[in-house]
Amino acid sequence: MNATYSPGLEGVVAGTTAISTVGKKGRGLSYRGYSINDLAGRASFEEVAHLLLHGYLPDRDGLAQFRNRLVARRGLPPALKKVLEQLPADAHPMDVLRTGCSVLGALEPEGSSLDGERTAERLLASFPGMLMYWHHFATRHRRIDLELEEENFAGYLMTLLHGKRPDELKRRTVDASLTLYAEHEFNASTFAARVTASTLSDFYSAVTSAIGTLRGPLHGGANEEVMRLVSRFDSPEQAEAGLKEMLARKEKIMGFGHRVYKDMDPRSPIIRNWSRELADASGHRPLFAIFERIEQVVLEEKGLYPNLDFYSACAYHLCDIPTAMFTPFFVFARITGWSAHIMEQRQANRIFRPVAEYLGPDPLKYPPLEQRRQEP
Amino acid sequence: MNATYSPGLEGVVAGTTAISTVGKKGRGLSYRGYSINDLAGRASFEEVAHLLLHGYLPDRDGLAQFRNRLVARRGLPPALKKVLEQLPADAHPMDVLRTGCSVLGALEPEGSSLDGERTAERLLASFPGMLMYWHHFATRHRRIDLELEEENFAGYLMTLLHGKRPDELKRRTVDASLTLYAEHEFNASTFAARVTASTLSDFYSAVTSAIGTLRGPLHGGANEEVMRLVSRFDSPEQAEAGLKEMLARKEKIMGFGHRVYKDMDPRSPIIRNWSRELADASGHRPLFAIFERIEQVVLEEKGLYPNLDFYSACAYHLCDIPTAMFTPFFVFARITGWSAHIMEQRQANRIFRPVAEYLGPDPLKYPPLEQRRQEP
Ligand SMILES: CC(C)(COP(=O)(O)OP(=O)(O)OC[C@H]1O[C@@H](n2cnc3c(N)ncnc32)[C@H](O)[C@@H]1OP(=O)(O)O)[C@@H](O)C(=O)NCCC(=O)NCCS
Ligand SMILES: CC(C)(COP(=O)(O)OP(=O)(O)OC[C@H]1O[C@@H](n2cnc3c(N)ncnc32)[C@H](O)[C@@H]1OP(=O)(O)O)[C@@H](O)C(=O)NCCC(=O)NCCS
Repeated sequence: MNATYSPGLEGVVAGTTAISTVGKKGRGLSYRGYSINDLAGRASFEEVAHLLLHGYLPDRDGLAQFRNRLVARRGLPPALKKVLEQLPADAHPMDVLRTGCSVLGALEPEGSSLDGERTAERLLASFPGMLMYWHHFATRHRRIDLELEEENFAGYLMTLLHGKRPDELKRRTVDASLTLYAEHEFNASTFAARVTASTLSDFYSAVTSAIGTLRGPLHGGANEEVMRLVSRFDSPEQAEAGLKEMLARKEKIMGFGHRVYKDMDPRSPIIRNWSRELADASGHRPLFAIFERIEQVVLEEKGLYPNLDFYSACAYHLCDIPTAMFTPFFVFARITGWSAHIMEQRQANRIFRPVAEYLGPDPLKYPPLEQRRQEP
Repeated sequence: MNATYSPGLEGVVAGTTAISTVGKKGRGLSYRGYSINDLAGRASFEEVAHLLLHGYLPDRDGLAQFRNRLVARRGLPPALKKVLEQLPADAHPMDVLRTGCSVLGALEPEGSSLDGERTAERLLASFPGMLMYWHHFATRHRRIDLELEEENFAGYLMTLLHGKRPDELKRRTVDASLTLYAEHEFNASTFAARVTASTLSDFYSAVTSAIGTLRGPLHGGANEEVMRLVSRFDSPEQAEAGLKEMLARKEKIMGFGHRVYKDMDPRSPIIRNWSRELADASGHRPLFAIFERIEQVVLEEKGLYPNLDFYSACAYHLCDIPTAMFTPFFVFARITGWSAHIMEQRQANRIFRPVAEYLGPDPLKYPPLEQRRQEP
């Protein structure tokens, strides 16, 4: 085995970045130099999106212009709506977003301009509408209006989902969670986007790769699996017993563990606080107690800490978001980080083309058709 | 800079494989132990596809059954046809295939069965139909029949394209070219497919990533760029002068160079032979001479050898394949290699999650909205 072989590329430096620090000693998690605590506590998601896409925090005017551009780019071309109408109600919502992104790339191609900031804003503005248009059409045969005036991004997507504006605590929770989900260095989906971008393919192809990669349960899909797990329990005691059995069977517990953070995920306490506040405000303390007990059991029994996906499931559930939409909400946020990385990849590109250690058969003599035996 | 950092992961072992040897000393290029010369010279593409997907060369019965299964899986669901009808005539054919694959994943999801061999056969059987249905509908508003009896794969796709069976030399050329394009270890699109599969996402997501990655001009898109380049010249002398100017301007010449093969690409002489034979048979020796002169100039001036994409452009052009379909033909073949790699990744999976070297700003104090200056 080659000395450099590290399964899953663990610890292997695959490129350089100026976008975020994940688990860098003494730096915690920051986006373009700003700590995640400051951003999630004090900035709106739109400010964070602007920081990631354009490189700096906007002033009041810059922020207003950015919000206006996003509002103006929410509409979908009729052909894309017709495509969404073909996707059945039981389709996987991530398949819907992956398809929507791919179709938009066919209808509004980048062309030779390669204006990444523009394409990024278009996708950021239009992803919520793609999902919600399909959702309301597939489940109730209603063609909803996507071009609402609501300029707050979290407010917009909650309004699309529920048909009415969210209460302020829920809106603020979703806003903070979008900031937490926005960016995370060379995670699998971002890395996939950079691999696709490295052949000088188009922006939409790179984002389509990222969506398909995020879909997996070891990555973005984990938040949905967490909710499915928690729903099986009625009390902390039941959860404790259930988790101990799962751990005894060596099952993986979704929402725990991380490739880079081997102790705490700095995003975890932030989303836990929001979850607790929501639980208190809405009389769901018992649900929160189940989450807390699971956290405790997995830490004690296995030494694993919850990652962002664990309490995000609690927060989203308490914001009345259907479980199957948890990973799509991750997309609505992470499109900012993906886009920043695609643009960064293009600025100093080299095609990603690693090698494999060969473990297959030695050279074989070619047998003509007549001389073959049917194998298995 | 970390000692392991290698831009584009050049030379970095990212996993193990038993599927092919690319540039392994003393082994040349082989698929599952069989040399590319034997396969391209003696096997049909269906035998090669079977070898890649199922692990062994089929006997006469096994091959007949495999061909029958492919014939039976050519039809497209009505919803997918309606989607294809929404994509405009000027859409990029790779956007059409990327979308078609994504939609099929929404309509015929893998579910929990994870039967990779079945999904792979479905995609292999149906990709030509997806592209050609769209092509004939978008350009002539004709809804063509996809479920033809023609059991030879190359014959099938040429018949779909041209509405009549190809002559035997063209069919055999396309057949051999599909074998050459079928598999190539950890090239960028296959690597992207493996990254997507590594989150335990679904098969269609992984293939969608691969299509989007192949689309770029540094990878599959190169064969189209070669044809666009060659079309600018009327004679070998013109080509020589044009190429020298491009090289003097330090332009990249598509169809030349390779990350792994630093001298000859073993597929190159094979497809050059087919191109010459076609050129001779069809009175296109002057076109072939332009290709030959370009090969000579780039080798002499720059020391670079043609890769598979260079003479493939000549071969496809002489088979009357529209230039914009060259990269889709690459997809029709490479779906076999991608699929083999996705199945292999699933068998011994670990999520791909490398790290980045951070080159961004030091920690910054968070400025409230009121205290920001608008930057650029
Ligand atoms: C995030 C994750 C993919 C990181 O993967 P990784 O760096 O390859 O970590 P490994 O799978 O090598 O884990 C190291 C050890 O911890 C165990 N482990 C890691 N996460 C675990 C979990 N969630 N539940 C139970 N055991 C876990 C592994 O089984 C392994 O034990 P072993 O050495 O005895 O085999 C992994 O922790 C995981 O699958 N978590 C659950 C999915 C999830 O929450 N994903 C969202 C991530 S933000
Ligand atoms: C295939 C390819 C992407 C490999 O990339 P790579 O391993 O990163 O190779 P590099 O770009 O580092 O090339 C090494 C040197 O050769 C030069 N080079 C490589 N391919 C070249 C080409 N096609 N035309 C002109 N110069 C080329 C590079 O400019 C570089 O020179 P430098 O060191 O003076 O900067 C690259 O050769 C290329 O872009 N080829 C054209 C696209 C193509 O045909 N793709 C299909 C591949 S099957």
